[in-house]
Amino acid sequence: MQLDRLRVTRHSIPLPSPVSDSTHGTIRTFSLVTVRAEAGSSLEGLGYTYTVGESAASSIHSLIEDDLAPLLAGRDPRCTEEAWRLMWRATHYAGRGGPASFAISAVDMALWDLKAKALGEPLWRLLGGNSPRVEAYASGIDLDQTPQELADRTRARMAAGFRAFKMKIGRDRLSEDVERVSAVREVIGPDVPLMVDANMKWTVAEALRASRALAAFDPLWLEEPIEPGDIEGHIRIQREGPVPVAAGENLHTISEFTAMISGGAVAYPQPDVTNCGGITAWLKVAHLAEAHGLPVTTHGAHDVHVALLAAVPNASFLEIHGFGLDDFVRRPLSISDGAATASDRPGHGVEFDWELLRAYQVDR
Amino acid sequence: MQLDRLRVTRHSIPLPSPVSDSTHGTIRTFSLVTVRAEAGSSLEGLGYTYTVGESAASSIHSLIEDDLAPLLAGRDPRCTEEAWRLMWRATHYAGRGGPASFAISAVDMALWDLKAKALGEPLWRLLGGNSPRVEAYASGIDLDQTPQELADRTRARMAAGFRAFKMKIGRDRLSEDVERVSAVREVIGPDVPLMVDANMKWTVAEALRASRALAAFDPLWLEEPIEPGDIEGHIRIQREGPVPVAAGENLHTISEFTAMISGGAVAYPQPDVTNCGGITAWLKVAHLAEAHGLPVTTHGAHDVHVALLAAVPNASFLEIHGFGLDDFVRRPLSISDGAATASDRPGHGVEFDWELLRAYQVDR
Repeated sequence: MQLDRLRVTRHSIPLPSPVSDSTHGTIRTFSLVTVRAEAGSSLEGLGYTYTVGESAASSIHSLIEDDLAPLLAGRDPRCTEEAWRLMWRATHYAGRGGPASFAISAVDMALWDLKAKALGEPLWRLLGGNSPRVEAYASGIDLDQTPQELADRTRARMAAGFRAFKMKIGRDRLSEDVERVSAVREVIGPDVPLMVDANMKWTVAEALRASRALAAFDPLWLEEPIEPGDIEGHIRIQREGPVPVAAGENLHTISEFTAMISGGAVAYPQPDVTNCGGITAWLKVAHLAEAHGLPVTTHGAHDVHVALLAAVPNASFLEIHGFGLDDFVRRPLSISDGAATASDRPGHGVEFDWELLRAYQVDR
Repeated sequence: MQLDRLRVTRHSIPLPSPVSDSTHGTIRTFSLVTVRAEAGSSLEGLGYTYTVGESAASSIHSLIEDDLAPLLAGRDPRCTEEAWRLMWRATHYAGRGGPASFAISAVDMALWDLKAKALGEPLWRLLGGNSPRVEAYASGIDLDQTPQELADRTRARMAAGFRAFKMKIGRDRLSEDVERVSAVREVIGPDVPLMVDANMKWTVAEALRASRALAAFDPLWLEEPIEPGDIEGHIRIQREGPVPVAAGENLHTISEFTAMISGGAVAYPQPDVTNCGGITAWLKVAHLAEAHGLPVTTHGAHDVHVALLAAVPNASFLEIHGFGLDDFVRRPLSISDGAATASDRPGHGVEFDWELLRAYQVDR
């Protein structure tokens, strides 16, 4: 089998309503970069990545079209390890992170989808999973919501089948965070998992203060308390604070995860298949976590991550993400009794509605 | 003062003759991305970055033009800390490394050049330096050269005024490296500094074996023995091997340098102003090294780095790089008695010959 073509498109998609967190402020749009890997006349694998707003979207687009597509043309797309190595090496000097990791992620995802389709297998089973069902949680990008709004939305989500929840923290005053977390905990009761996410708002000292103040509400994890590059800082927050730390959506190389995981800097690694280097890299991070006795969880892209969590024995909760990509996906994931089920169609199972996406396409 | 325009161009430049190292193989071209920051009708700051071959060049170009230029338009270009913070934040989600770091580097350099020109000061003195003279070494991208060729070239470089030298190692057999390093040491005598550069060829075990075998030739440093992301590996090579380690050309964020320097992973930090985040970031890494009792040295871009090393009290040797950018620079750096002298013109002093560069320009 040989790869005939990598087709790239870019789309700027408005969110149904603006969302907010402590680092990105108010977010009104996201950028979607898609890759279609074609082999023969009938086989097509789909990959994608996304960024906040328009940030670096044209850069990712350029990198796929100018660097990665010519590199892989004519090669066997099923040889995903070799394709990944070639992409890593070709972008090494100006790569190993940033837009290069996003570009490699999208292409790698497309190759895996193509391979699974060629074999007629759903991705979760091709990767060795036993059951397509994965525990999931409802994620909120909701830093601007009042305690009352948070409580109301949480009730609605419980009614919709969710059994675990995440909310943003990192308001200007810690007492506001306490009040907001308290409101949600009161709605869900003592036994339902509740995660909190600070989006890198704090210093280590501020994070430890928050960890201690929020411990009374028993968060399952404290996500991204500080800048992602500060490994020693994460270690301190884990050692000196009562709440386990989750991080990973801003780690873009396997070696960053190695340093974090082997250093004891994180309890819940969160690789994102759309920016950590694709399915090839995501699996290595998941296995690295397993080898260190840790679970693996995810960030965004729940439509693809459901298949990856279903494939590994150390899966923690799947994040059901707040961005509106579901509106452009045929048969979006549904939740019942707190769990999501990976598709049984060949490949990862995600199909875009290209007609709908066309209206938001941005030319290079 | 306000920034009126950021003008970006990209050039694919053939090397005078191909060069080689253990990771990139044979290199025939490099890509140059230039930024001209214009304020008013007469002030123009110049920044640039480069990559190996064509790798990621269009991606860097896109990022400057689509993300950074609109962000900085109309702002005061002298407020370099604030400009850097804005660029870092705007690219944060898909940035913090890779092509984003190269793009920020080029823009930041242009802003500093503009500021120094506006003040009529040479950059080295604006930054607090006492003397423009900096010890330099001749760097060879020469893995394919025989011991005889290496010896002949070293003699020619000694005659040209050089008093310190670097060569590539990482041949298939360690005995070849030993033979080649021995040949150069014999030419230069026991007291002349000789550095060796493995370009990330090895595992930790291989690097330790090489460190022990090459120690007899007293290398000043062993450069990039392993992959740049493996902090623990660098620490082991420093602790267990006899030769101090140099690294940094592949570290693209300040936090990576923090982890390396504070962890004791590197004896000679080598930030590259064209990819570590520009002059703003380079200075912070240099000061971080000083605070840890370490020197700072450089990678490539000697025309600009000479002004930075001249500005800091902990300068080690300036690398005089093997790529052929000198052919496109008016008044390239000259070496006398082992030292280079930073320009006394306002700014960093680098001016390109735009007429010559035009022949190699690549449209977006």
